[in-house]
Amino acid sequence: MVNDNILGIIAGILTSLAMLPQLLKVLKEKNVDDLSPLMLITLILGLSLWVWYGVFKRELPIIYSNAFAVLVNLSLLSCYFLYRKSG
Amino acid sequence: MVNDNILGIIAGILTSLAMLPQLLKVLKEKNVDDLSPLMLITLILGLSLWVWYGVFKRELPIIYSNAFAVLVNLSLLSCYFLYRKSG
Repeated sequence: MVNDNILGIIAGILTSLAMLPQLLKVLKEKNVDDLSPLMLITLILGLSLWVWYGVFKRELPIIYSNAFAVLVNLSLLSCYFLYRKSG
Repeated sequence: MVNDNILGIIAGILTSLAMLPQLLKVLKEKNVDDLSPLMLITLILGLSLWVWYGVFKRELPIIYSNAFAVLVNLSLLSCYFLYRKSG
């Protein structure tokens, strides 16, 4: 029998890990040509609603993994405004 | 009072929408230089576990939005193997 919380924690760790390389690449190369601020804002809004959903359902794996994703994508959005070519 | 299913559906639509431009861009430009197959596989594995989690918890918004994300990222992975430079 699989414990659904452990399942959620492993799922959350995998999906969280998978989004880090993009942030590391942007931080390293200071190149934000491939980032779309509109899509980042849409994503941050959606992920924030998932956090809210997790709070409603009292499901910690949902809350933690989406809150982490919000932080990663807020960082990407900050990088966008910091590094975009102002020309 | 917010209905948590509606919250999950809106969250799912937003996070699903936000991942489409990357797929459209890759399909249009046939350029997969920025894709990491290892990260795509990690993401697909994690998203699949989220689908499983949703099945356990009997939460349709979790199942639908993560199943959609699995499809999008499987498409990206297929594009990677289809379009990568074989040199």
